[in-house]
Amino acid sequence: MLTQSTYSNQISAAIEQAQFPLNPPKLYDPIRYILGLSGKRVRPLLVMLGADLFACADMESTIPAALAVEYFHNFSLIHDDIMDEAPLRRGSMTVHKKWSENVAILSGDALLVKAYEEIARCAPTKIPALLRVFNKMALEVCEGQQIDMDFETQEQVNQEAYIAMIRAKTSVLLGGALQMGAILADATSEEQKLIYDFGVNLGIAFQLQDDILDVYGNPENFGKQVGGDILCDKKTILRLHLQQLANNADRELLSSLIEEKNADRKIQITKELYAKYGVREIADNLKVHYSDEAYKSLEAISVADTQKAALLNLAKNLMVRTY
Amino acid sequence: MLTQSTYSNQISAAIEQAQFPLNPPKLYDPIRYILGLSGKRVRPLLVMLGADLFACADMESTIPAALAVEYFHNFSLIHDDIMDEAPLRRGSMTVHKKWSENVAILSGDALLVKAYEEIARCAPTKIPALLRVFNKMALEVCEGQQIDMDFETQEQVNQEAYIAMIRAKTSVLLGGALQMGAILADATSEEQKLIYDFGVNLGIAFQLQDDILDVYGNPENFGKQVGGDILCDKKTILRLHLQQLANNADRELLSSLIEEKNADRKIQITKELYAKYGVREIADNLKVHYSDEAYKSLEAISVADTQKAALLNLAKNLMVRTY
Repeated sequence: MLTQSTYSNQISAAIEQAQFPLNPPKLYDPIRYILGLSGKRVRPLLVMLGADLFACADMESTIPAALAVEYFHNFSLIHDDIMDEAPLRRGSMTVHKKWSENVAILSGDALLVKAYEEIARCAPTKIPALLRVFNKMALEVCEGQQIDMDFETQEQVNQEAYIAMIRAKTSVLLGGALQMGAILADATSEEQKLIYDFGVNLGIAFQLQDDILDVYGNPENFGKQVGGDILCDKKTILRLHLQQLANNADRELLSSLIEEKNADRKIQITKELYAKYGVREIADNLKVHYSDEAYKSLEAISVADTQKAALLNLAKNLMVRTY
Repeated sequence: MLTQSTYSNQISAAIEQAQFPLNPPKLYDPIRYILGLSGKRVRPLLVMLGADLFACADMESTIPAALAVEYFHNFSLIHDDIMDEAPLRRGSMTVHKKWSENVAILSGDALLVKAYEEIARCAPTKIPALLRVFNKMALEVCEGQQIDMDFETQEQVNQEAYIAMIRAKTSVLLGGALQMGAILADATSEEQKLIYDFGVNLGIAFQLQDDILDVYGNPENFGKQVGGDILCDKKTILRLHLQQLANNADRELLSSLIEEKNADRKIQITKELYAKYGVREIADNLKVHYSDEAYKSLEAISVADTQKAALLNLAKNLMVRTY
């Protein structure tokens, strides 16, 4: 097995070497731009680690599938940023702000097709299975984004619906990436299911952690503004539990905070309410539940522990133990 | 060979029987809606006629590919209508007007993925080739749409650039549909190229005819408002030739018409300018050139004339002889 950083370097090199046409510039410049905003490239790495886990004989052959996943992820960022009216992405202007909404719609479409071009570059015997997994994942991501937008206008969101949303919107992509790697390594359907479940549950745990870190994260380690979710009244796992548990007076207090202009005061009072109803513990326990589920799936895979080391290491790095 | 209307009925039935999830409604209702606005379904028919031409043994097997093409076409309509700020499509409200731009972006994305799901339902041995043709076509359609939008802000557009735009935006889809049918019927690459070229050139001729009919069509037969292109100052094949040929005074007159509020007067003067510079004849000749090219490609295909009858009939029906 090669080291994880070798795979990461291969992915970065492949993305840098990817050639997109020069014309029309408004179609391809935004694609070059968003792929150039250095993300962590976790998803394409998962394709390679999924293949590596099952001792894929030809790791070079996984690069197109890895690119497909990364292109898909960036397509979804371009379109989601339009819908969410986001001005910034990875600290730079979003495509629709830098160009226009029309440019963002169309270059996003083209990037999605480019993802399918990468699928088409895989070994022909593998293409049908890869395509099925990729399509299912892509459709669920669309569903997740729509459900997330629907939440904005819903008074109450329960935990089950919330988990279903983050599973579809963000986690199936991690599971799908790993499964595509497994397919390329000729893993059985049972093995594919286990590694897919590992990715999905890890993704859910990671997303729950993101909700928790937003409030309790160490500002020095956490990349975003602490309390950002509170300030924009985002329905996080913490908030939806608070809304269910709070007595009438506290629920009214929470509602009144929507109008609160003093950011520090808004964060402070919300955190006091979280503490009063113990929602941090609920969220922590839920995160642990999903990460445990993930580890169980990985353990159930019948390959040597040395083969699992890289994935286990990645999972441990994604899961923060102290906040 | 079954009759063309049998194929059309099979396509209509397949579209009606297609099942889309109920939830989330904002993702799938717009898909049901746009597919329900009865279009002519020419593109999926071309998939079947392309397969029929090469004596496909199992015509049932062409239905998923036909649906893929129809879904792709409708995806592009949803997104183009946002970009073009179109209020109506086939006489009904466009998706972004009936719901919202966000809904139109995301349901369009989902419909594109649905098209790829249909590709994945084709015979596994055919999927790699189908996917390559479909991807190339899809990317060119995106390019064509961007080039078309770029034209809006360009002073001069020459004939070569215009033909390249309509080729990409609308004609490659007809060629690609036929080629996908040919692939399903095990046609050779040479045969695939000939039927692709037939479709592309027929598409260009049809689009040029559309420009001509807009001005000279019989209002009783032509589905749209006669003079509609003139009223919105669209850069048609007629207008771009007029702009190249007109003397300075007439070019200024043409420019001044952009501000003209009287619709009849605007159409009248533009038509007089078209007549003065003979641009209708130029456009007619160009249309005949491309339809001749199309027929040449069809003739060059070594199958019995009886096999070609349906396609020839379709082409003759698309090409209007008297305006």
